[in-house]
Amino acid sequence: MKIKLVCVGKIKEKLYKERVNKYLKWIKKDIKIEMILLKDGNKKILNNSLKKHLHSNYSKTCISQEGVQYSSIKFSKFLFDQNQDLAFFIGGPEGHSEIIKKSIKRSISLSTFTMPHEMALLVFMEQIYRAVQIKKGGIYHR
Amino acid sequence: MKIKLVCVGKIKEKLYKERVNKYLKWIKKDIKIEMILLKDGNKKILNNSLKKHLHSNYSKTCISQEGVQYSSIKFSKFLFDQNQDLAFFIGGPEGHSEIIKKSIKRSISLSTFTMPHEMALLVFMEQIYRAVQIKKGGIYHR
Repeated sequence: MKIKLVCVGKIKEKLYKERVNKYLKWIKKDIKIEMILLKDGNKKILNNSLKKHLHSNYSKTCISQEGVQYSSIKFSKFLFDQNQDLAFFIGGPEGHSEIIKKSIKRSISLSTFTMPHEMALLVFMEQIYRAVQIKKGGIYHR
Repeated sequence: MKIKLVCVGKIKEKLYKERVNKYLKWIKKDIKIEMILLKDGNKKILNNSLKKHLHSNYSKTCISQEGVQYSSIKFSKFLFDQNQDLAFFIGGPEGHSEIIKKSIKRSISLSTFTMPHEMALLVFMEQIYRAVQIKKGGIYHR
């Protein structure tokens, strides 16, 4: 199983950048994961980049406020029960592109609160790390 | 209206500390807010400290995974419609003390996911900042 995170917009703030990369490094000890940051300046270029990831044979999920809510344990099961490569799409400061909304039917919600996209990425990254620890049966998740 | 955040446990990581304090500084430009960090080493001392805050005449709310979920706009209304001083209790790495669970009936949920308490504090602090911006009608919340 491989995980791909397709994120729109840069991680501008040092806090988020450092912390997100730390979780990424930790997760990589156990599973294959890659994070792709797409520039959100030019809409046409962005949509072309998104299309490439939409045409992959990964199982695709949006991170969206309106999505399905999981507990950490259920999310861990969701990750590991599929036995398939998974792609998660995280929108930029303006939310998801229309192309994403139209193409991806499944979405997961981190919170009913709106939060900055960098914070959403951090929360989601920690959740993947937690999901791996739950699968491994460590003491991280209490 | 005054807001008091009663948090159990230190903010150990510099990155979280900096960011939480930044939001606190920004929120203070518009409303009165104070953050109280209680040590979670000795249970008896902790419970005594919590009791003091439980006996204040603030309207009290727990931050808890199982709580009521709000959108950012509804949370902003919740904050400003009460016309009362508000105290929020954020648990430590081990969750809330029994005394808190027994005494406070109202709770708000940030997410159905479990997250580190430092991250929960960061998410909640940004949400208070956002609530103030929503009330003011700025461009921060889109």
